[in-house]
Amino acid sequence: MKNMIIGVMGGGTASPKHLDAAFRLGREIARNGWILLNGGRAAGIMEASARGAFEEGGITVGILPDETDARASLYIRIPILTGMGNARNSINVLSSDLIVACSGGAGTLSEIALGLKSGKNIILMDFDVGQESGPFAPYFRQGLLHWAGTPEEVIQKIREIMGL
Amino acid sequence: MKNMIIGVMGGGTASPKHLDAAFRLGREIARNGWILLNGGRAAGIMEASARGAFEEGGITVGILPDETDARASLYIRIPILTGMGNARNSINVLSSDLIVACSGGAGTLSEIALGLKSGKNIILMDFDVGQESGPFAPYFRQGLLHWAGTPEEVIQKIREIMGL
Amino acid sequence: MKNMIIGVMGGGTASPKHLDAAFRLGREIARNGWILLNGGRAAGIMEASARGAFEEGGITVGILPDETDARASLYIRIPILTGMGNARNSINVLSSDLIVACSGGAGTLSEIALGLKSGKNIILMDFDVGQESGPFAPYFRQGLLHWAGTPEEVIQKIREIMGL
Amino acid sequence: MKNMIIGVMGGGTASPKHLDAAFRLGREIARNGWILLNGGRAAGIMEASARGAFEEGGITVGILPDETDARASLYIRIPILTGMGNARNSINVLSSDLIVACSGGAGTLSEIALGLKSGKNIILMDFDVGQESGPFAPYFRQGLLHWAGTPEEVIQKIREIMGL
Repeated sequence: MKNMIIGVMGGGTASPKHLDAAFRLGREIARNGWILLNGGRAAGIMEASARGAFEEGGITVGILPDETDARASLYIRIPILTGMGNARNSINVLSSDLIVACSGGAGTLSEIALGLKSGKNIILMDFDVGQESGPFAPYFRQGLLHWAGTPEEVIQKIREIMGL
Repeated sequence: MKNMIIGVMGGGTASPKHLDAAFRLGREIARNGWILLNGGRAAGIMEASARGAFEEGGITVGILPDETDARASLYIRIPILTGMGNARNSINVLSSDLIVACSGGAGTLSEIALGLKSGKNIILMDFDVGQESGPFAPYFRQGLLHWAGTPEEVIQKIREIMGL
Repeated sequence: MKNMIIGVMGGGTASPKHLDAAFRLGREIARNGWILLNGGRAAGIMEASARGAFEEGGITVGILPDETDARASLYIRIPILTGMGNARNSINVLSSDLIVACSGGAGTLSEIALGLKSGKNIILMDFDVGQESGPFAPYFRQGLLHWAGTPEEVIQKIREIMGL
Repeated sequence: MKNMIIGVMGGGTASPKHLDAAFRLGREIARNGWILLNGGRAAGIMEASARGAFEEGGITVGILPDETDARASLYIRIPILTGMGNARNSINVLSSDLIVACSGGAGTLSEIALGLKSGKNIILMDFDVGQESGPFAPYFRQGLLHWAGTPEEVIQKIREIMGL
């Protein structure tokens, strides 16, 4: 039986509060025996979430934009080198059974949009993209986009969505 | 000298009003001697914009998600077959000197986000993603996202941005 | 009716004899009203074949590995920027109705192999990959790989294969 | 410290002898604590090598051409879903520290060629692509292509090349 893969998306830079939440989310993912997958770089949400899972002994997979692992986080156990730049964002979402989107900019927004396009459930962790109005509101109503304030709420939501 | 390439993004389904605007936009792009690039399928904004340019004798390039041209619009003169699904959205934006985003859903939002990530200028044609607030507002303030109500205004904006 | 697209593959460096043949091949492709597609860089077989087609007024499409057109040949009218490195070789072969492989190294061999994997007809122009024995011999017997000594013979073969 | 990743390439169909060797190779890779990476499908060399590593408790990573895991081998612990078809072959080779190419057809030849293009060491396990003459001969002379008759010889070669 294959382990569930949780994708954690988020910016290459983030506030201390968001980095701490990403670290704790990574830890919880590992404690649940799930695989953490992210963009793999040694920066921001990617580094923080990978460290959380890695230090708990979890498997961490990074889908890197580069042809080499020079920019890979040391907390990534399995670096996948795509050499494809941002086109790899599509692989991030396809490979995840469920996606958690943390605070981020255009790159994270592209992963949310690509995930929705592929019909994936996406939990926004303390990241406001507009729930009542704006371009993402229809996906909340459709039940693909979800909101959670903390890592603990994210884990709870994952269990609900996956029927665990 | 290479011709300017204008990317036209938008949904596989759209209202008659938006389809008509996309058709007129394609026609104006061709009249200006620019190349029109889109997602290439025989549907929605892609088909309408390609037809507008094609009927004016313009060059139309379609970056298709598929391995064959079975779903390509007949108004696409140059179908590029990527076989990469939505990962091809990254190619759409990288290959465009400037992007016009028409009405669409998650796929179009991913192209807007990927375009911003790559630092491209994007003109939203009668497509509201939130200008004052929401996740895209910072990019309006930064001057990468622009608004235009009609094809004529889009062409005017392109001229301004490109210094023509 | 869409124009036929002929892919011309070959190394970033080549002998004067092979460069001259690639130039003449590009010219013939344009004279036949076909579109020339190659890897798009300002080097070797890519540059030479693009120049041949361009100077004859033909449409030249370059599928570049890069995110910008800094390394694109000036004889490429339509640069497609993939930002995908060598993964773009797959797009080169899928987008071509028929492939001509000129002298080259590992990159060209990968395009021959990917083309065969996709069931494309490939004409080797004065490029010996082993016809009677070796890993490519089965594809000669199968009728997917063809040999031609000169640009004129290539054009003749294209006509035969395409039933023109 | 990241574990070494050994890529195992080979056809979707293979003889019983080659399948058995691929199975034993997978087992040896796991016994050495290395990660096995392959194309991920439930067929041929992919399935056999994944099973060998999986049954020994090793980590198995499959880089699949598809958007879903419907065709993934059950012996793949970490399926990476690219949705990119054969373009994913480039990811296979970039992500591998060293590549073992088993018996295969055009797909495997494309991976050998892409690996050489990226400067990767490739060990051919009982798979003859021409050592003295033919298009791959220069890469033997250059020291990038290596020959091994059995899984045991492959492991020995990996140790030599990697200085273990």
